Amino acid sequence: MSVKLHIPGVCDLTTQNKTPFPLNQWYVAALSTELADQPLARTLLNHAVVLFRDASGKVSALEDRCCHRALPLSSGTLDGGGIRCGYHGMLYDGSGQCIEVPGQDVIPRRAKVKSFFVEEKDGLVWIWFGQDEQTEPVSSAPDYPVHSSGDYIWGGGVYHYRAPYQLIHDNLLDLSHLGYVHLRTIGGDPGTHMNADMKTTADGDCVRVVRHMRDSTPPPTYVAAYPFKEKIDRWQEIEFLPSHLKIWTGGVNAGTEDLDNPDRGGFHMRGFHGVTPETETSAHYIWTIATNPQTDPEGTLKKVVDQTALTFEEDKVVIENQYQNMLKFGDQPMVSIHVDAGANQARRIIEKLRTQAE
Amino acid sequence: MSVKLHIPGVCDLTTQNKTPFPLNQWYVAALSTELADQPLARTLLNHAVVLFRDASGKVSALEDRCCHRALPLSSGTLDGGGIRCGYHGMLYDGSGQCIEVPGQDVIPRRAKVKSFFVEEKDGLVWIWFGQDEQTEPVSSAPDYPVHSSGDYIWGGGVYHYRAPYQLIHDNLLDLSHLGYVHLRTIGGDPGTHMNADMKTTADGDCVRVVRHMRDSTPPPTYVAAYPFKEKIDRWQEIEFLPSHLKIWTGGVNAGTEDLDNPDRGGFHMRGFHGVTPETETSAHYIWTIATNPQTDPEGTLKKVVDQTALTFEEDKVVIENQYQNMLKFGDQPMVSIHVDAGANQARRIIEKLRTQAE
Amino acid sequence: MSVKLHIPGVCDLTTQNKTPFPLNQWYVAALSTELADQPLARTLLNHAVVLFRDASGKVSALEDRCCHRALPLSSGTLDGGGIRCGYHGMLYDGSGQCIEVPGQDVIPRRAKVKSFFVEEKDGLVWIWFGQDEQTEPVSSAPDYPVHSSGDYIWGGGVYHYRAPYQLIHDNLLDLSHLGYVHLRTIGGDPGTHMNADMKTTADGDCVRVVRHMRDSTPPPTYVAAYPFKEKIDRWQEIEFLPSHLKIWTGGVNAGTEDLDNPDRGGFHMRGFHGVTPETETSAHYIWTIATNPQTDPEGTLKKVVDQTALTFEEDKVVIENQYQNMLKFGDQPMVSIHVDAGANQARRIIEKLRTQAE
Repeated sequence: MSVKLHIPGVCDLTTQNKTPFPLNQWYVAALSTELADQPLARTLLNHAVVLFRDASGKVSALEDRCCHRALPLSSGTLDGGGIRCGYHGMLYDGSGQCIEVPGQDVIPRRAKVKSFFVEEKDGLVWIWFGQDEQTEPVSSAPDYPVHSSGDYIWGGGVYHYRAPYQLIHDNLLDLSHLGYVHLRTIGGDPGTHMNADMKTTADGDCVRVVRHMRDSTPPPTYVAAYPFKEKIDRWQEIEFLPSHLKIWTGGVNAGTEDLDNPDRGGFHMRGFHGVTPETETSAHYIWTIATNPQTDPEGTLKKVVDQTALTFEEDKVVIENQYQNMLKFGDQPMVSIHVDAGANQARRIIEKLRTQAE
Repeated sequence: MSVKLHIPGVCDLTTQNKTPFPLNQWYVAALSTELADQPLARTLLNHAVVLFRDASGKVSALEDRCCHRALPLSSGTLDGGGIRCGYHGMLYDGSGQCIEVPGQDVIPRRAKVKSFFVEEKDGLVWIWFGQDEQTEPVSSAPDYPVHSSGDYIWGGGVYHYRAPYQLIHDNLLDLSHLGYVHLRTIGGDPGTHMNADMKTTADGDCVRVVRHMRDSTPPPTYVAAYPFKEKIDRWQEIEFLPSHLKIWTGGVNAGTEDLDNPDRGGFHMRGFHGVTPETETSAHYIWTIATNPQTDPEGTLKKVVDQTALTFEEDKVVIENQYQNMLKFGDQPMVSIHVDAGANQARRIIEKLRTQAE
Repeated sequence: MSVKLHIPGVCDLTTQNKTPFPLNQWYVAALSTELADQPLARTLLNHAVVLFRDASGKVSALEDRCCHRALPLSSGTLDGGGIRCGYHGMLYDGSGQCIEVPGQDVIPRRAKVKSFFVEEKDGLVWIWFGQDEQTEPVSSAPDYPVHSSGDYIWGGGVYHYRAPYQLIHDNLLDLSHLGYVHLRTIGGDPGTHMNADMKTTADGDCVRVVRHMRDSTPPPTYVAAYPFKEKIDRWQEIEFLPSHLKIWTGGVNAGTEDLDNPDRGGFHMRGFHGVTPETETSAHYIWTIATNPQTDPEGTLKKVVDQTALTFEEDKVVIENQYQNMLKFGDQPMVSIHVDAGANQARRIIEKLRTQAE
C-alpha cells in the first residue's frame, strides 16, 4: 500500500478540512545561540516572525511588521525592553504592545502587533502554533536533556531547505541512503546499510526505527573521532515526532556489548533534528549533534560537528534536487522498497494531524 | 481617517475608471547628462522607451521595438540623424519613421514606431504621458531654474526602486524618518526630527510641508559642508507635485535669521526629486542636489552629492524592504501617527488624478 | 503575406490539434563527445532525459527520474551496464529496467523507467520523438558525412537559449544580419550582405537559400584562416530541415571559379546546426563547424571554432534580447523585408508539421 506525501505542486492532498502542517504543536524556532544582540527574522509555518531576546534575557516572538507603515521589525534595533522600528522609531515590548511613538504623547489604541507563545529550554527556542490564534499550548515545550545533562558536548546549525518538510522526514527516517549519499563522512559500505537489521514500531504520534549493523567497517567520521580497533557493532535509533526527530547512533568494538542495552559504552552521536516548515514548499532544519568524548573533547566535537554539517549539506543537495524533479514530473507513481517502512508510518501520522480538529 | 495607497498586490484600489498612475503629466525621463553617444532604454509608466540624442543635440523618445523583428532599438547604435537597429540595420529618425532598409529601395509603408513628446529643460529630460495617445501636452514641461540660474552648483543620480512610486512619496513627505534611517548623514538627533514645528498646506495638486527645527545640533553633512559655529536653526520645505518633489533644506546659526524669509542666508541644499513610475510595482528616482558653496565649491559639492547618494541608498533599502513586507502580509490596517499629514494629503491628490477624465 | 511564429507569450497559435514542436522527427540530443564517464541531463521537447554511455560504448536515453523517490538519475553514477541512483542505489539498464534494488532480492514489477530511441552517428547523438510513445522511428537517423569523410576537420559546442527554437531558425535562414551583428568575425561590410544575390527554394520539408557575394572584401575570420589575395567571391548555402540546418559557406579569389560548381576550391566552412527545443520557450543549439585547412590544420581549426563560438554568442545575445522584447510588447505586427523569404518558408513548414496527424 502506498502512502502519499502532501507535496505542493506534485501531489497536493489538501482538502477543505486539512491544514498544510500539523497544528497544536511546539516547533523549534531557533537555537538559543542565534538570539544575541540582533533581532532574528524567520518565517515559520507561513508566519513572518521576528524573534528577539530582551535586556533581561527573555525571548519573545512577534509578527514581523510594524503597525505604522509595515516595515519588518526585524530590520530595526533592540532597545532595552523591546524592539524599535527602523523607519519612524516606534517601540514595542515583548507582548507586541507599542510603548512609544516618538514625537507624540498618546499611543494610538490600535498600535500593537501579534505575539506568539515561545519557550526556551535546553538550548532550543520553541514556538507554539495552535489550531487557531486562540488555542493556547496544552503542555510545556519538549525537554531535551542531552543538551543540559552534562554527559555530552554538542554543537549545531540551521539550514534552509527549498523543499517541503516531509521530504526531510523521509530522508531522516530511512538511513539506508547513507551508503550512497554520505560516502565521504558517516556512510561507509552501501551493502552494510541496505542489509541492516531493521525494526520499525509506531506508538501514537511517534515512530521508532532501530537498525543494527554488526561487524561492520567504521565510517570515516567514527574513525576520526574515536579509537576503534577494527570492525564495530553499530546502531541507529531513530525516533520521529511530528515536529522533530532524534537520531541516536554509535558503535562499540564488534562483539563486545549488547546493542539493546541503553547503558552500552563506545562512541555515541546523539542528533536532534527540528524540522520546521517555513512555507508549504520550504523548511528550516535546525539540528544539533552531541557526543561523548573519550579524549580531546573540543577536537572531537569540532570533528563531529564539521562532518555532520558536511553530511547535512549533502542531504540538502539531494532533497532539493529531488523536489525540483518532483515538480518537473508532477504526480507520478512511486515504487516503494523495503527501507521505506518508517517513512510511510510517519506520513500516516502527519496526514492524520493535518486534519483540522472540529 | 486613513487614506490607502494603491499598492499592487497589497491594497489595489484599481477600479474600471482608474489608471495606475496620474496621466496628462510631464514626468522626468532622464538627466540630460545620461544622453551622450549611446541610446538609453528606460521603461516609463509601463512603456518601454528608448531615449537618444541625435547629432544635432535634439533628444527623442521612441517605442523601444524595431518594427521588423521586435529587437529593442536601444541595443542598436546612434547614426547621425537617427537610431539603427542592431539586427538587420533598419534606421529610424526621431519621429519614429524608418528612413532606411538596408538592401532594398522601397521603405514599407508601415515601417515606423511610436514616438513620445519630450522636452529638455534645465538639465532634465521630461516626457509627456497623456490620457491617451492622442492627448498632446497642455503646457510646456516644468522649469527648474535652480539648475540654470548660476546661484547653485549641483549634481545628481538615478536610482531604480523595486517598489511602487507612492511609497517614495510617503518617504519624502515625512522627513521625521531622518533620525532613524539617516543617522550617519543628514539625520542627527531623532528627537529633534520627531518634535519639529510642522505645518502642512495643500493647494490644488500641490502639498507643502514646512518644518522648523530651532536651536538644534547640525547633522554630519551640514558640518562637513559649512562652517557652522554651534547650534543652528534648521528648515525643511517640501513641495509635492504629482510627478516630482522639491525639498529645500538648510540652516543658519541659531537665532541669527528669520526662517520664513526666502532671502535668508546660511547653508542651503535644494533637492529635486523626480519620481517616475516604471511599472505599477517599480519606479525610477531621478534626483539632483544643489548647494551654495561659501568656499571650496567643488569640494563642498562632492561632499553634498556623495552624502546625498548615501542617504538615498539608505531610503531605497528601507522602502524596498517595506514593500516586500507589504506583499508578504497583504492588505492589513496601518496605524497613522502625527507625522503622516503631508503624505496623506499627497495620497488624496494621486487618488483624484488616477481617475480617468471622461 | 505575413507568416506568424508560434511564440509562447507572444503569438501563440496553439490550437487543439497542434503540437508545440514537429513530432515524428529525429532531433540532435548531444555531441558524441559530451558522453564520457558522466551521465548528461538534458530536457528535450519537454522531456527530462538522462543520456549516458555504458561500458560497451552504447548510448542510452531514459526518463530522468528514479521510480523510487523521483531523484534525477542524472545525479547518480554510471555503473558498468547501467546507471545507479544517488539516493538509495537502484540500478537501471539502458532499456530503463531496474536490475538491482540494494538490500532486497525481489525487484518490484513496476520498477522501471521510460526509455527513448537514440542513434549515434557521425559524432552526433540523435533522439526520436514520435507522435506518441508508441510511434517508432520510420527511418534511421540522418547521416552527416562531413564529420566522418576525412575531408574536413571539425569542432563544435552546445549553447542553451532562453528563447523559442523558431527564433533560431529565423536567424540562421537570414544571414543578412552578419553585417550588423557579427562585425568582429564573419561579418564584414553590411552593404555586401544586404545586397547579395539571393535565391530561395523549397522542396518538401526542406528550404534552401543560396546567396552569392561576388568581388567582396573577405571578413576577419576568412583572412585569419586562409591566404586570400584581395577581393573574393563568396557563397552562403543554407539548407533548412525541421530539426537541423546546414550552412555551408566559403570563398575563392574573385573571378577564379564557378560558384555553382560543388567541387569549387578555396576556403570552406561547413556548419551543422541542431536546433532542438528544450521547452516551448527555450532551446538547445548544438553546432559543429568543419573546415578544409591548407596549411596549419590545427591552428586553422582552432581559429575557425573560436571565432564561430564568438559569433554564436553574439547571436544568442541578440535572440534572447529579441525574445524578451517580444514578451514585453506582446503580439504586435511585424513588418517583413526582402531578406525574410527563407525564414517565412521555414515557418510554413514548421506550422504544417505541428499539425498532429490523425
